[in-house]
Amino acid sequence: MSQTVPTQETLRVEEDVRQPLSPYLPNGTSSMHTTLTYATSLDSAISLQPGAPTILSGPRSKAMTHYLRMKHDAILVGFGTAAADDPGLCCRIAGATLEHQPRPIILDPSGRWNFSADSKVMRLARAGQGKAPWIITALNQPPADRVKLLQELGGRYLRLHVSDHRKGTSQAFNWEDILRCLSQQGIKSVMMEGGATVINDLLSPANAQWVNSVIVTIAPTWLGRGSLVIQPEKTRDERGGLGPAARLKDIRWITLGEDAIVCGRLEQR
Amino acid sequence: MSQTVPTQETLRVEEDVRQPLSPYLPNGTSSMHTTLTYATSLDSAISLQPGAPTILSGPRSKAMTHYLRMKHDAILVGFGTAAADDPGLCCRIAGATLEHQPRPIILDPSGRWNFSADSKVMRLARAGQGKAPWIITALNQPPADRVKLLQELGGRYLRLHVSDHRKGTSQAFNWEDILRCLSQQGIKSVMMEGGATVINDLLSPANAQWVNSVIVTIAPTWLGRGSLVIQPEKTRDERGGLGPAARLKDIRWITLGEDAIVCGRLEQR
Ligand SMILES: NC(=O)c1ccc[n+]([C@@H]2O[C@H](COP(=O)([O-])OP(=O)(O)OC[C@H]3O[C@@H](n4cnc5c(N)ncnc54)[C@H](OP(=O)(O)O)[C@@H]3O)[C@@H](O)[C@H]2O)c1
Ligand SMILES: NC(=O)c1ccc[n+]([C@@H]2O[C@H](COP(=O)([O-])OP(=O)(O)OC[C@H]3O[C@@H](n4cnc5c(N)ncnc54)[C@H](OP(=O)(O)O)[C@@H]3O)[C@@H](O)[C@H]2O)c1
Repeated sequence: MSQTVPTQETLRVEEDVRQPLSPYLPNGTSSMHTTLTYATSLDSAISLQPGAPTILSGPRSKAMTHYLRMKHDAILVGFGTAAADDPGLCCRIAGATLEHQPRPIILDPSGRWNFSADSKVMRLARAGQGKAPWIITALNQPPADRVKLLQELGGRYLRLHVSDHRKGTSQAFNWEDILRCLSQQGIKSVMMEGGATVINDLLSPANAQWVNSVIVTIAPTWLGRGSLVIQPEKTRDERGGLGPAARLKDIRWITLGEDAIVCGRLEQR
Repeated sequence: MSQTVPTQETLRVEEDVRQPLSPYLPNGTSSMHTTLTYATSLDSAISLQPGAPTILSGPRSKAMTHYLRMKHDAILVGFGTAAADDPGLCCRIAGATLEHQPRPIILDPSGRWNFSADSKVMRLARAGQGKAPWIITALNQPPADRVKLLQELGGRYLRLHVSDHRKGTSQAFNWEDILRCLSQQGIKSVMMEGGATVINDLLSPANAQWVNSVIVTIAPTWLGRGSLVIQPEKTRDERGGLGPAARLKDIRWITLGEDAIVCGRLEQR
């Protein structure tokens, strides 16, 4: 993806924000860069209930998120987000051309995402306002009508083996495999946006190595008990004792409107 | 409590912090001021597991918390915190005299807190480094030895009726009653510090009216699943739909070392 940005984006407010973000963004080298990003309430909720799209970010942090999308080759979400939110997964920064649009990537091992020509991401692709998605699946033969629809718009299925490496989640891909697959397709940077399953998985001790930077927007609200929450698995020390799941280093806080953004890298253990 | 502060406290770093905090602190008027304050991880945990004291704040936000304590007449915690943490509940800002020390208040309706002369708060009181606690209880006759120990150090039991006003929590005091009781004892400002039960209760829609300001320290860590978390009850709209538990207004973010502090007031509904 080109690193030049269209003129409408160089707003004064954006300049203040772009500079502190830059150490956490892909820097144009050839190795893969991944950014884990999500918006949360003070009580670590990302939506009011499973499957209910919830607006958390204020207008300035929302714009920041779209700026991040422009800086990555791809945006990755899990099946749950695709199904619940019908997300656009595009970059709405004024003046962003199709070249600036990230490639939507959906993790859908069992082919559960029942998209159609009316799905938002497909409508955007048809209108030239976004790229058609790539769907990572374990299916040998995805349904022919979906393959056709995807192909018409410039998207496709990518086949990946599910791994039995992680116990209890038989249908899970390894993150190493996911990133290698995307890298082989020419993707050099991925913004991993959600939902809860994907984020909790990436923040778990075993997967922290696949995350290069973390950018979390915190809205000054409590969504309350019963919400869909981020709560990764704890670490375990040699004697079986439980420790914190993850911690950031190289930390930078940015205040944007009523929200705060914390940027950092995961401490590796 | 005197509003003058000892010289050691006027560090440059403290001055930067004291100024943005001031709109959220007691302003010396005669009406009662309450500040809800706690330290949390990014995943809304206040300790690794119930009953395990966990250090979250970095050194600068820890100092900020002690500054807040100096600005209030009293610090209130629930029985659970007193029992689990054996907390000092004093102000360790260098040069703070006994006059600057807040009065520790423990909510212990059933007299479960099994303190002794060795409890930290008692040792501090004996050494003249803190005030002896006031314990709010529903017991008619607290154990004589505890009454005696408290009295020797200048503390006491305050008797309050438990209210059946709130369903399901038969042993709960009303916050209105708690604050009236403290007010009658000459307390003009209370910092409500925890633990989870107290904070979740105060952030619930029914009790938000008893909270004048909120100051939350956020540490850039995830304590992980199974931690003791802040997750207040959701609001309910007229048609029974569930909405966010609480939201801040008049927001100010302060960055302190690796932590961020959010200050605000609760939107009343
Ligand atoms: N606030 C925010 O920033 C934000 C951002 C995005 C989404 N959200 C919210 O998050 C919610 C959705 O979260 P969610 O937890 O239900 O779903 P999700 O994380 O979007 O998707 C989970 C599903 O994706 C697939 N998946 C994830 N990781 C995989 C892996 N390593 N290998 C193979 N498949 C994998 C699995 O599908 P299978 O079950 O078919 O195996 C899994 O069940 C929505 O309510 C949405 O609004 C919030
Ligand atoms: N990170 C932080 O900022 C922070 C601060 C403080 C504490 N903590 C942590 O919090 C944990 C303790 O939390 P917790 O939820 O177990 O206990 P807690 O909130 O400290 O105390 C709960 C108990 O206090 C009494 N209580 C609370 N509200 C009451 C009311 N309105 N009326 C009457 N009694 C009331 C009840 O005692 P009965 O059950 O006897 O009725 C209740 O069970 C500890 O692990 C501590 O480390 C963290």
